[in-house]
Amino acid sequence: MDPINIGIIGLGNVGMGTLTILTENAQQIAIKLGFPLCVRAVCSRNVAGKALPPGLDSAVRTSNWREVVDHPDIQIVAELVGGSIVAREIVETAISRGKSVVTANKELIALAGAELWDRAITAGINLAMEASVAGGIPIHAVLREGISGDRIGTLYGILNGTCNYILTEIESRGASFDQALAEAQRAGYAEADASADLDGFDARSKLAILAALSFGERIVPSDIYTEGIRRITPVDFEYAHQLRHTIRLISAARQTSDGLILSVRPSLIPQSTILAGVRGAYNAVWVQGRYGADTFYYGRGAGSHPTGVAVVSDLMRVAREIRCGSPERVSPFAHARLGEYLPIPVTLHQSAYYLRFRVQDRPGIIAQLAAALAAENISIDSVLQLPNANWRDLPFVITVEPTTEQSVRAAIARMAELHFLIEPPLAMPMEQSL
Amino acid sequence: MDPINIGIIGLGNVGMGTLTILTENAQQIAIKLGFPLCVRAVCSRNVAGKALPPGLDSAVRTSNWREVVDHPDIQIVAELVGGSIVAREIVETAISRGKSVVTANKELIALAGAELWDRAITAGINLAMEASVAGGIPIHAVLREGISGDRIGTLYGILNGTCNYILTEIESRGASFDQALAEAQRAGYAEADASADLDGFDARSKLAILAALSFGERIVPSDIYTEGIRRITPVDFEYAHQLRHTIRLISAARQTSDGLILSVRPSLIPQSTILAGVRGAYNAVWVQGRYGADTFYYGRGAGSHPTGVAVVSDLMRVAREIRCGSPERVSPFAHARLGEYLPIPVTLHQSAYYLRFRVQDRPGIIAQLAAALAAENISIDSVLQLPNANWRDLPFVITVEPTTEQSVRAAIARMAELHFLIEPPLAMPMEQSL
Repeated sequence: MDPINIGIIGLGNVGMGTLTILTENAQQIAIKLGFPLCVRAVCSRNVAGKALPPGLDSAVRTSNWREVVDHPDIQIVAELVGGSIVAREIVETAISRGKSVVTANKELIALAGAELWDRAITAGINLAMEASVAGGIPIHAVLREGISGDRIGTLYGILNGTCNYILTEIESRGASFDQALAEAQRAGYAEADASADLDGFDARSKLAILAALSFGERIVPSDIYTEGIRRITPVDFEYAHQLRHTIRLISAARQTSDGLILSVRPSLIPQSTILAGVRGAYNAVWVQGRYGADTFYYGRGAGSHPTGVAVVSDLMRVAREIRCGSPERVSPFAHARLGEYLPIPVTLHQSAYYLRFRVQDRPGIIAQLAAALAAENISIDSVLQLPNANWRDLPFVITVEPTTEQSVRAAIARMAELHFLIEPPLAMPMEQSL
Repeated sequence: MDPINIGIIGLGNVGMGTLTILTENAQQIAIKLGFPLCVRAVCSRNVAGKALPPGLDSAVRTSNWREVVDHPDIQIVAELVGGSIVAREIVETAISRGKSVVTANKELIALAGAELWDRAITAGINLAMEASVAGGIPIHAVLREGISGDRIGTLYGILNGTCNYILTEIESRGASFDQALAEAQRAGYAEADASADLDGFDARSKLAILAALSFGERIVPSDIYTEGIRRITPVDFEYAHQLRHTIRLISAARQTSDGLILSVRPSLIPQSTILAGVRGAYNAVWVQGRYGADTFYYGRGAGSHPTGVAVVSDLMRVAREIRCGSPERVSPFAHARLGEYLPIPVTLHQSAYYLRFRVQDRPGIIAQLAAALAAENISIDSVLQLPNANWRDLPFVITVEPTTEQSVRAAIARMAELHFLIEPPLAMPMEQSL
């Protein structure tokens, strides 16, 4: 049977993984689909220097992406270059040429997913983006197909493998943040400039996409409260363990009666939850549905081959749709009734909180902190101090009963006047609903 | 836009859950699909006595399933009656009438899935069966779409919620098997006659389906070595914990260079693996792909609403396919090259093993057991005895280094002559590759 023809733009990690899987699995793919996929063109800035897998001899090699999207035989363009400027031009041009698009680009989809879906539907083509979030986890297939009949209430994600690797290194070896970061860089889990990971912006893009899919509402990344992991220390894990919790960078989308609360921030989660078992450079997504209750999905967040599987699976799905002539008809980013799940400020979030203080030893410290909390009607749940701790050296912790983020922030603002604090308190929500 | 019309046959737990979700989520479903789903007929032996959700007033109510499959307007029949005799007649009749079918029936799909898929493809209709395995986990969507580009090497499942509930009750409370079973029955997790669950046959049907989907080969349930959980005692968990393992009823499909090895049996798994965190009446599936590496899926295995989500999601997918005129073209149960992944005997499985002995106290016991093992070239890894244990009362354990199931069975056959054994040894594989 005639093949469906593909053009691959971008031969970095993900592009090479995609090519490897497409060639090594070619026969199996053809059997599963009932027809083969054929790579007709590959594009990379340094295409001449790339060693491609065998079987691609007849494919066009170019460093000009327009040659791929303009190629008359190519039906699906895989955009694997990343970034949001050139990538957007590639995707929009391909759509305007009537070609279907598979993309692994989280920034682009987080920023412009809704517009791109609208264009795709207008153009009568197919768009797929499984690889844009949590590479190895087929979370798009799950949300769009597998549990599409459910109504999602809450979604929690561990969406940045670098942060999870660093946090579990701090947890398991007592490493400092800087040591753990250096280790992650040595192990290839963190780039030299890892700030997009460490400060939560990578996870923020991914949460924007998952929240859009889950709630059918356009989510702008800048609507998401975002806080990174740089302040987490081994001592925080010691206190968390005392509380039978651990610490992860949790990306959360919660539907409340007032709207959607979105955040990316280090959070305490109970050790008994399956989410706490996510260690190292893995990703995971926990979904609570009104009918399906809890489901949980786990896998590698990145990597040439795991992300390549997502791209290849998308290519197969889109090829199947092209073969039956069924273009996209409904945007997965806009199926809510207008405004139903619009984001509301994170300050309305209600939770128990963990507050960690570094202080100069002085009498009456607890009394003054407690007064600041009481002034905001916050009840103290426990005061924790590690054995053998000296207040001059080691921080201590106050946990408080469920209250609003707004109240916690107000209490922390009051504490700014307390000169015995060496640094502002570190506040983390304690997730109870897992 | 015109609706797609549905008939529901079977109004038990799953049928009622499906109707509830279809009616309560009707508006959301219509937005996601771009058109509504309309329930035109419902069928149940005692349909007169059923209190249906509101909005179904105009639906035909009948106790004769033929009225549903013969209804000229109905495009999708949901078979939710269970069992394999009448259900098969319903599904085959519906297919022969050119209607698409959604089924939640694991026995039927495990027994006749390959034939039903062939019929569906010949008839040019759509068939869906997400709810037939691990109700709340969208594992079919994952295997058929989400990671279809990968090549699966191994699949491990915890596929029976009753067994998992009982095992974790034994583990966490030290309950005996009988106590834990009674507790499961009180909690509604086990039926009065739970033998299909306890002896592994329910999990076997589910594994047959997942292995067929994973390897594209027809799998007959009777090809699967199956052993239940009746012999597991609190002491086994104590020994397992000493070994930093736990015990679960593991359904496994492993691709080896010789073929596929399939088994359902209680197994020791490392406590550090995320699979060990599956407690209570939950199900989980762990997949190891050649390219995607490890992915893991977790959720409720049964229940009216979680299984209903699977049925409704299938109805949505099939409705979408009908609307674009794209019937099934390739059977998910037969996409391997012929015979590539045919099952081979479980006796070829290689693993470390846990052997638990109940003995009459007598000198020389270890020496004689060791001799039986040595005669089959099996190396002892450790001999474990709980502190304060009296050999007359408490069993002890020998773990052995990786060997074949065949050798273990031969050694156990030799031990049949040792009259100090009160019962045959309990042998469980220790899974290392998780």
